[in-house]
Amino acid sequence: MEHHGGKMTAADEVATLDHDAVRVVNRAFYDAFEDNDIDRLLAIWERSDRVQCVHPGWSILRGWEEVGASWTAMLEGPEQLQFVLTNEHIEVKGDVAWVSIDENILGLGGSATVAAMNLFVRTNGEWKLVSHQGSTVMQGR
Amino acid sequence: MEHHGGKMTAADEVATLDHDAVRVVNRAFYDAFEDNDIDRLLAIWERSDRVQCVHPGWSILRGWEEVGASWTAMLEGPEQLQFVLTNEHIEVKGDVAWVSIDENILGLGGSATVAAMNLFVRTNGEWKLVSHQGSTVMQGR
Repeated sequence: MEHHGGKMTAADEVATLDHDAVRVVNRAFYDAFEDNDIDRLLAIWERSDRVQCVHPGWSILRGWEEVGASWTAMLEGPEQLQFVLTNEHIEVKGDVAWVSIDENILGLGGSATVAAMNLFVRTNGEWKLVSHQGSTVMQGR
Repeated sequence: MEHHGGKMTAADEVATLDHDAVRVVNRAFYDAFEDNDIDRLLAIWERSDRVQCVHPGWSILRGWEEVGASWTAMLEGPEQLQFVLTNEHIEVKGDVAWVSIDENILGLGGSATVAAMNLFVRTNGEWKLVSHQGSTVMQGR
């Protein structure tokens, strides 16, 4: 996408709006996580069989029941996490968008960087989270 | 997608064909990896700025140059890997498809399971790999 002053086409403008919308929803996910707000966090997910999640070190969870339960358990835990998000990159193709991002996480147990990918699908104009995968980055990589 | 005998709609049939095409390309990726065939493996990737890759424990690589170089280095390494693929699940939405899969990897250094997600985009009828992320599953998870 090119952003030359005054030279954006209508398609470019729509693409920019799509990116902005995805950025807002993706950030709302981390805000809810940081606030330990389970209702807000779960509302960002699509409630369907196709949702999936890989927490760092975990095996693949699939379907709303498994995925939702894992987040509920995580947010009910004692640890309060703080996220510093860097290296955000958004791609949109039709009604699918994916965001890769570094979650720099500060918690009671120290700090870690998790390389994450969030995939959203747009249904009836709403972007909903369908897949989240986080991989802990080893120091020095 | 419902598969009642003789009751598949045209849309169901097309969806099944899309799934089949994605499954073939995804398996070709692992076949090339197992065969240490760098040309075949790289040909499965889209050559674009939007490709991205997270190897287990690595930070996010972005763009064809970085991603391609990492695979070339990996396949030039001494280790011969064998993949047993399980738990494959394919989703297709428009011209985007994503596959979650367990890579059960046997190598000289022992065995490991990597939870992986491969995202493909269809351009001019061809599914090309745009994102790969692999996370090592810790024992017992």
